[in-house]
Amino acid sequence: MTPKAYIFDVFGTIVDWRTSVAREVETAFSTKESDVDPLQFADTWRGQYDPAMARVRSGGRGYVALDVLHRENLDETLRLLDLDDTLDVNERDDLNRAWEKLDPWADSVSGLLAIKQKGIVAPCSNGSIALMTRLARYGGLPWDCILGAEIAQNYKPEPAVYFACCKALQLDPADVMMIAAHNSDLEAARACGLQTAFVPRCREHGPDQTIDLAPSSDWDRVVDDLSELAD
Amino acid sequence: MTPKAYIFDVFGTIVDWRTSVAREVETAFSTKESDVDPLQFADTWRGQYDPAMARVRSGGRGYVALDVLHRENLDETLRLLDLDDTLDVNERDDLNRAWEKLDPWADSVSGLLAIKQKGIVAPCSNGSIALMTRLARYGGLPWDCILGAEIAQNYKPEPAVYFACCKALQLDPADVMMIAAHNSDLEAARACGLQTAFVPRCREHGPDQTIDLAPSSDWDRVVDDLSELAD
Repeated sequence: MTPKAYIFDVFGTIVDWRTSVAREVETAFSTKESDVDPLQFADTWRGQYDPAMARVRSGGRGYVALDVLHRENLDETLRLLDLDDTLDVNERDDLNRAWEKLDPWADSVSGLLAIKQKGIVAPCSNGSIALMTRLARYGGLPWDCILGAEIAQNYKPEPAVYFACCKALQLDPADVMMIAAHNSDLEAARACGLQTAFVPRCREHGPDQTIDLAPSSDWDRVVDDLSELAD
Repeated sequence: MTPKAYIFDVFGTIVDWRTSVAREVETAFSTKESDVDPLQFADTWRGQYDPAMARVRSGGRGYVALDVLHRENLDETLRLLDLDDTLDVNERDDLNRAWEKLDPWADSVSGLLAIKQKGIVAPCSNGSIALMTRLARYGGLPWDCILGAEIAQNYKPEPAVYFACCKALQLDPADVMMIAAHNSDLEAARACGLQTAFVPRCREHGPDQTIDLAPSSDWDRVVDDLSELAD
């Protein structure tokens, strides 16, 4: 059954957050004397992504946009890496916008344009509407609309997020396909009744990546890149 | 102060709902024996738009998507025009999708593309996310994201809708410009602190239109069309 809409994980699936954030970190510290490993910085920052969202998912904290969590996690990253004295508040606010400047993978834009000919394309990301909008403008991502965590006021992999995307499109979950480079995301989407497609991004975490190198289940589609999914 | 985002009324300002709906009405009744005036039908259908939303705005009814209100109003229109026996449920459901097939005014797409070079462009419409998404695909409207009534769970001109759009973009109202062909929409936006621009659409209601032919206040910008706004 051909999907009527295609919703995508973004961080890792559509954009290369790791090298992009590292590039912005390098710029932020270019005039500083501190010795900073930009890739380690990016990994440490991203390492606090899931724990920060877990507090919202558990109900221990009301929904706050991912931009706010990223900003808090940046403070924590600077503490962890003994860099607390290096960046002032304005510099931190600027660096937090690194998440709005993430480069798409080489096949992302052309793949999305091709899939858009088949049906609605939208992000189903934990990023906020503001973040996804600015990221789309930065990378030329041709979304039809912005869906995801903010319209659900919760974070993936909570079922509420996948259901909110389908509801916003006024489609049954069976008519919607979730595309991700992360098996756990697809497990959650499948449990909600969505179709699933896996696209491996074996360099998301760098050359030594050990997770999500291959599909962990019989997803409806397993493709090498987004162009293949369009076909 | 140059706006960082431009949000637009859609029905009337970006698209010509009246002749487009009339065209779909004509198609729906092409195989029927009933004598139907398509433009009168469109006007009668649209005539129930505001009263239907008023029940939500007043709190008398929880938020329901405009698609649902349109569908209810279609039933009422058929009753009012003595056409209750003409269309079955499936035909009514099909005709309700007329609102997803509204032609943009001649300057809308090129104007939006030009304004998009200056800042974020998004609808601030009473249409649902699903409706705005499908309308954008139909007419090639190059929105960066879909904002409006659904993210506020309320209808314009309630302040909640304008504030929800600014909040979703993480912008102060003063950094956002509302563009509309309806003075009342701009009055509400200005009261929320947004910048305002008026673009007259003197044929929205046909050749005998009497309202919104000219600006009723000193809006920040008054332009002949969207291309002029981009300049």
